[in-house]
Amino acid sequence: MLIVQKYGGTSVGDLERIASVARKVAAARDAGHQVVVVLSAMSGETDKLLQMAHTMVAHPDEREIDMLLSTGERVTIALLAMKLIEMGYPARSFTGRQVGILTDSAHTRARIERISAERIRASLDAGEIPVVAGFQGIDEKSDVTTLGRGGSDTTAVALAAALKADACEIYTDVEGVYTTDPNLVPHARRLKKISYDEMLEMASLGAKVLHSRSVEFAKKYLVPVRVLSSFKDAPGTLVTKEDAEMEQVVVSAVTYNKNEARVTLMGVPDRPGIAARIFGPIAEARIVVDMIIQNISDGGLTDLSFTLSRSDLIPAMEIIRKTAREIGEREVKVHEHIAKVSIVGVGMRSHSGVAARMFETLAREGINIMMISTSEIKISCVMEAKYTELAVRVLHDAFGLGEEPGAVSEE
Amino acid sequence: MLIVQKYGGTSVGDLERIASVARKVAAARDAGHQVVVVLSAMSGETDKLLQMAHTMVAHPDEREIDMLLSTGERVTIALLAMKLIEMGYPARSFTGRQVGILTDSAHTRARIERISAERIRASLDAGEIPVVAGFQGIDEKSDVTTLGRGGSDTTAVALAAALKADACEIYTDVEGVYTTDPNLVPHARRLKKISYDEMLEMASLGAKVLHSRSVEFAKKYLVPVRVLSSFKDAPGTLVTKEDAEMEQVVVSAVTYNKNEARVTLMGVPDRPGIAARIFGPIAEARIVVDMIIQNISDGGLTDLSFTLSRSDLIPAMEIIRKTAREIGEREVKVHEHIAKVSIVGVGMRSHSGVAARMFETLAREGINIMMISTSEIKISCVMEAKYTELAVRVLHDAFGLGEEPGAVSEE
Repeated sequence: MLIVQKYGGTSVGDLERIASVARKVAAARDAGHQVVVVLSAMSGETDKLLQMAHTMVAHPDEREIDMLLSTGERVTIALLAMKLIEMGYPARSFTGRQVGILTDSAHTRARIERISAERIRASLDAGEIPVVAGFQGIDEKSDVTTLGRGGSDTTAVALAAALKADACEIYTDVEGVYTTDPNLVPHARRLKKISYDEMLEMASLGAKVLHSRSVEFAKKYLVPVRVLSSFKDAPGTLVTKEDAEMEQVVVSAVTYNKNEARVTLMGVPDRPGIAARIFGPIAEARIVVDMIIQNISDGGLTDLSFTLSRSDLIPAMEIIRKTAREIGEREVKVHEHIAKVSIVGVGMRSHSGVAARMFETLAREGINIMMISTSEIKISCVMEAKYTELAVRVLHDAFGLGEEPGAVSEE
Repeated sequence: MLIVQKYGGTSVGDLERIASVARKVAAARDAGHQVVVVLSAMSGETDKLLQMAHTMVAHPDEREIDMLLSTGERVTIALLAMKLIEMGYPARSFTGRQVGILTDSAHTRARIERISAERIRASLDAGEIPVVAGFQGIDEKSDVTTLGRGGSDTTAVALAAALKADACEIYTDVEGVYTTDPNLVPHARRLKKISYDEMLEMASLGAKVLHSRSVEFAKKYLVPVRVLSSFKDAPGTLVTKEDAEMEQVVVSAVTYNKNEARVTLMGVPDRPGIAARIFGPIAEARIVVDMIIQNISDGGLTDLSFTLSRSDLIPAMEIIRKTAREIGEREVKVHEHIAKVSIVGVGMRSHSGVAARMFETLAREGINIMMISTSEIKISCVMEAKYTELAVRVLHDAFGLGEEPGAVSEE
C-alpha cells in the first residue's frame, strides 16, 4: 500500500516526539508499505514567528509573512529525515517547492492549483521515504506561499490524491472524530466513519479536527482519510464517501462554536440593493459573515441580523457604523455572547421531524433560539452562549449519540 | 552606485538590530544608491539548529543539515523586508534559490558555481531593494545547500561580482581589519586598506574578519570590499587590489591562532611514499593539515611533525595510530598547547631581512621557535601557546605597526 501520513504540530512538538513519529513511520515501512510523510511545524513555532513579525511591524507584508512562516516545517522535515536515516531507513526531506506544489499567489491563504509530485515519485521509486513540508507551496513566480491554518492537512490530502495513494492518515492529538466534544460530554463516542459532507459541515461549524479545505480535496478526489491519534494506538475515524449505513443514522454529531457574535441593524429601509450596500464592504474587508436573517418588513423598514466570528467584530463594526450613517438605519445592536449549536447527519435527508425534535429538546430546557439556519444535512441554532454546554448535552442524548448505532459495525 | 551590503549575525541579532539595519539600508537608498542586502541568520541561531540536529542523531545527514540551517537566513530576510516595506521602501526578500545561486552538491560546504541573479536585476529595475539570504544556494538537483561558516560573506561578494556592483560592504561587529587583535595590543591600528592577498593570508591565519572564500572571489573578480562596523559610523577597511603604496609597508599585520596542535611521528622510515601513507587517510577524513616538517634522515629513520586544528586532534590521532602500526614508527608525540604567530605583508616581496628581524625579535624574548613556514607575503612561527600574547606584542612593535605609515593617506 502507498500511505500518506501527516503529523500535526503537537505530534512533532519536540525532539522526542519527532523520534516517536520516526518509529511510527518505520513501523509502517516495516509492514511493507510505501510511506510519504507530511509534517507541520513544531507546535507554537508558527505563532512564535508571527509574533516576531507583528513585533517588528504593525502590518507585515503577506509575501514576507509566507517567507517567514515557511521555515517552521523545514525544521521538522530535516530533523525527521535525519532520524529516519540514522535508524537505517532511506529518507529525504522535500519542501513544498521541491515536490511541485503549485498554488495561486494569495499569500498566507494560498490554494493549491497543481501538484507535479515528480520528485516524490522518483524518491518512492528509489525506495526512499519522502518527508514533505506541509502548509507551503510556490506560486508561478516561484515565490513561497502558505496555505493558511491547518494547511498541512490539505498538503497531505492533495498529495494523496496526486499520488493516488491507498490511504491518507492524519495523526493528531485527538483520537478521531467524536459525536461531540468529549470535554463537554464525557460519554461522547468516537465515530468509526463519517462522510465527507458531514465532516465538511463539522469543520465549518467549529470542530477543529480537520481543515475544511482538506476535506473538500478528499471529497473531490475520493481520498479516504483516517483521523488518528499520534499518541495512542487506536483505529481513529475514517472520513469517506457516503454509504447506506451512514444514511441510517439520523444525526452523527453535535457541534458548537462559542466564538460568534451577532449584529442587528434596526430599522433598515426594505428596498432592493440594501443588503449589498451592507455586506459588500464587509466582504471586501475579507470578513466572513455566517448567518443572515431579515425580519418581515414593517412600514418599509426591517431589522437585519447577522453573525460573524467574534474576532472580526471590531473591524466589522467600524464598517457597519459607516454604512449605517449612509443608509440611515435607526440603531445597531451587538450581542457578543452568543453561541451556535448544530446537529449534523446525512440521515436527515431521509428522516423527517429532525428539526422539530431539536427545537423541542431545546425548548424543554428553556433555551431560547435566536436564529436558525439549515442545510440538507445540518441544523444550526444560535442561542445565548451560557446555554452552550446544556444544549450540547441534551441534544447529544436526544439523538442517542452516546449509544453505539446498531447498524454500523466496526470497519 | 550599486552597493551590495552584507550584515552578519550580530548585526541582525534581534528585532531592534534588524530595525537599525533597515535604517542603514534606507539611508544608502536615500543617498541615491541602488542597494542589494545580504543577511546572515540571527547570531546563535545556526548553532541552535545544529545543536538540535546533534541532539536528535549522532551523525546528521548533511543534506538534511542544509535543509535545517537554511531556515535561519529566511527569518532575517523576511523580517528586514517587512520593516523596509513598513518604512515606505519597496523591498523584497529572496532565498539563495530565488536569486539563482547555483552551487556544487558538497552539502554544508558547497561552492558557488554560477549566479544567474535575474530576479535581483528585475527587482532592482523595478526600483526595489532585494534582501537576499546569505550562506545558501541550490545544487543542480534543486536541493538546498549551504556554503559553510562565514558563507554569507561569499554570497555578498559573489553577488557583487555577478551584478558588477560598485561596492561591496561587509557590516560586522568590528570596525575593520586591524594590524593585530586590539584585545591583545590596545594600540593596534585599523588598516585603511589591505590587498586581497594579505587578507587571504590573514583569513587563513586566524583573523576572523572575512571568510577566506569570499576574499578569493573578491580577488578573482576584483570586487572592492569594505569591512565596516554595523554599530559605529566609521570608514572601516577597504580590501582591494595591490598598489604601490601597499608595497612600501613591509608588514601589514600580525596574526595568531591558538587553536592548533602539533603531532610528531618519531622514527618514521625515510622512503618514498611514506608521506602519502600518513597524510592520505587524514585528508580522506577531511582533516586539514597545516604545516609539515621532516627532519634530516638519520640511519634511514626520520622524525615528521605536523600541525592541525586542535578540534581535529582526536579523529586525527585515531587515524595516525592506525597508520603508525602499519608503517612501524617508534613513537607518536602530541603537543596540544602550541600557537602559530604570523606576520603578513605584500612589502615582504621587495624588502629583505624581514624573516631575520622576526626571529631576532622572538629570540630576544627567549621565545623558542618550534616550526617555521613562509610564503611570499607571510612568515609563520609555531611556538608554545603561553608565548602568544608576548610574541604578538613584540612583533607588532618591532615592525612599527602602531604608527601611522607615512606613505599611506586616508582614502
